[in-house]
Amino acid sequence: MTNQVELLVKGSRRALARTLTLIENQHPQAQATLAQLYPHTGKAWILGVTGAPGTGKSSLVNALTKALREQEKTVAIIAVDPTSPFSGGAILGDRIRMQDLSGDKGVFIRSMATRGSLGGVATATRDMVRVLDAAGFDYVIVETVGAGQSEVDIVRTAYTTLVIEAPGLGDDVQAIKAGILEIADILVVNKADRNGADQTVRSLRAMLELGHPASWEQFVSHHGRLMETPTMPSTPSDVTLWIPPVLKTSAIQNEGITELVIQIEKHRQHLTESGTVAQLEARYIEIELYERLQQALMRQVTSQLSESLIQTIINQIRTREIDPQTAVNQLLVQLN
Amino acid sequence: MTNQVELLVKGSRRALARTLTLIENQHPQAQATLAQLYPHTGKAWILGVTGAPGTGKSSLVNALTKALREQEKTVAIIAVDPTSPFSGGAILGDRIRMQDLSGDKGVFIRSMATRGSLGGVATATRDMVRVLDAAGFDYVIVETVGAGQSEVDIVRTAYTTLVIEAPGLGDDVQAIKAGILEIADILVVNKADRNGADQTVRSLRAMLELGHPASWEQFVSHHGRLMETPTMPSTPSDVTLWIPPVLKTSAIQNEGITELVIQIEKHRQHLTESGTVAQLEARYIEIELYERLQQALMRQVTSQLSESLIQTIINQIRTREIDPQTAVNQLLVQLN
Repeated sequence: MTNQVELLVKGSRRALARTLTLIENQHPQAQATLAQLYPHTGKAWILGVTGAPGTGKSSLVNALTKALREQEKTVAIIAVDPTSPFSGGAILGDRIRMQDLSGDKGVFIRSMATRGSLGGVATATRDMVRVLDAAGFDYVIVETVGAGQSEVDIVRTAYTTLVIEAPGLGDDVQAIKAGILEIADILVVNKADRNGADQTVRSLRAMLELGHPASWEQFVSHHGRLMETPTMPSTPSDVTLWIPPVLKTSAIQNEGITELVIQIEKHRQHLTESGTVAQLEARYIEIELYERLQQALMRQVTSQLSESLIQTIINQIRTREIDPQTAVNQLLVQLN
Repeated sequence: MTNQVELLVKGSRRALARTLTLIENQHPQAQATLAQLYPHTGKAWILGVTGAPGTGKSSLVNALTKALREQEKTVAIIAVDPTSPFSGGAILGDRIRMQDLSGDKGVFIRSMATRGSLGGVATATRDMVRVLDAAGFDYVIVETVGAGQSEVDIVRTAYTTLVIEAPGLGDDVQAIKAGILEIADILVVNKADRNGADQTVRSLRAMLELGHPASWEQFVSHHGRLMETPTMPSTPSDVTLWIPPVLKTSAIQNEGITELVIQIEKHRQHLTESGTVAQLEARYIEIELYERLQQALMRQVTSQLSESLIQTIINQIRTREIDPQTAVNQLLVQLN
């Protein structure tokens, strides 16, 4: 074990920050470091938090963190930055939060820019979660804007996923977010002091009844589709399904946060006692395995392909000399 | 050339429907058929149409199709079904549309379910576009709900991409959709008879000024990120950038459709005359090449891996005997 990993595991914040930077920069040492700290992972409870902009997601994570701190739990937060150049909101929110929680040694916050991260956001997030897990945090919260596939990727690392909503978003938005509901373990209607909170709670409950996976098979078929690995997990015979509760909170007024912590703990108990957490972890690892395999294979193959060969093939396809799949088949024969 | 492809190219609707079914069902003959019809592709202009639910996307595609038909152009529509089990809207919309446009031999409509399509929506969409292109349609419209990564994948096949908005969606939604704006060649504010249409137009223009790629480098960096191939396209020296126009339409009242057709034609001219269309096509082919390569490699490798080996490795990772990347590296050594 290198000195840095040793220090990290013992709780050095300096070693932690350095390790995270190493990994973010894809330093040649990153892989070895991750391998060394991996045996120290598996203790943190990983929370995924997602929701549209304007739902007060960051304030809620803030309030939740404070509540967990009151129970003397340590908390690390990974704020995954939106990829769009239009919004700079996450960084701003992060600064405000930093002020609010700074000075507390039991809290650690790190932003992650997803823009242009080759190898995928999912891989980068997983690696960061592991570093923070090895550093001994009781909770690692992965926070991301719910706006597409990437938040689904990210949530895949989490044991408990909170989906944050807010009153007053129209039906159109609800429809957009339907896909996100599927991944929720706990639904939170934040900004509950606003008009229409009860209406939002009701419509979310209705949507849940309509669409939440009612069986393990359905659950697997939803998540299996999102995850796409060649194999499918087996059906456990005795899983009691978790019905996602819909909670009301007001992060700014610190209302409903105690109940939220209770529900998170309940979900954790549910997963642990039913043995589902082991299955979930096995499934996440399987997905990761295929993703890493894919990345490694592509690295191997592309290193064998010259730029000029690729350009020649592209040209042949463009001029209709050859079709794309036949071109790929020929390439594979050449490579083997 | 098999008889069926021959008939398809000559315009037989029966051969067309059969070929599409063959491809959808991933029939053993699908690959050979696609290879045979590939030389007949490259003539259609491919339009991507995306937008949130509730923007009246289908009605707009309907109105646009009628306008193109008045110019004696033939139109094929691929409606990509949303993946969420919550919404059954697309199928319903499709039926209504069918009634409206049926009986016209110059129009062909096909829905594509994306749910569980292994190998990816992008590949399936591309294949269908090619069949319709070979069948001689002047325009192929790929319509999809704008709610994530998949619509970006789909739009990658298109030369001209329309992003549909509607008045009265809140700021939160605008933020969600920011990522979608980046892919727009033409922005359409539909339902312009509603209150707030001018406000929506103004705010979209403001967002465009703020965030639309101002240079080819930026364009490439946006799309490069979305597309992630090991190489990056070169910078053309003399590209005039296209500034996406923001149009107002009311599909139901058939207003603004003529202008929309004019702008589509302008964009086509712009791409053709500047030579950008060839570059765009080369880039799309490059992405496709890597995607197909990845799929083929994974098929090769997973066929060599036994289920029990995978389960053993998953278990070793779960019990922290080995870390995921080291496991993958060892696996690759064994396979080679």
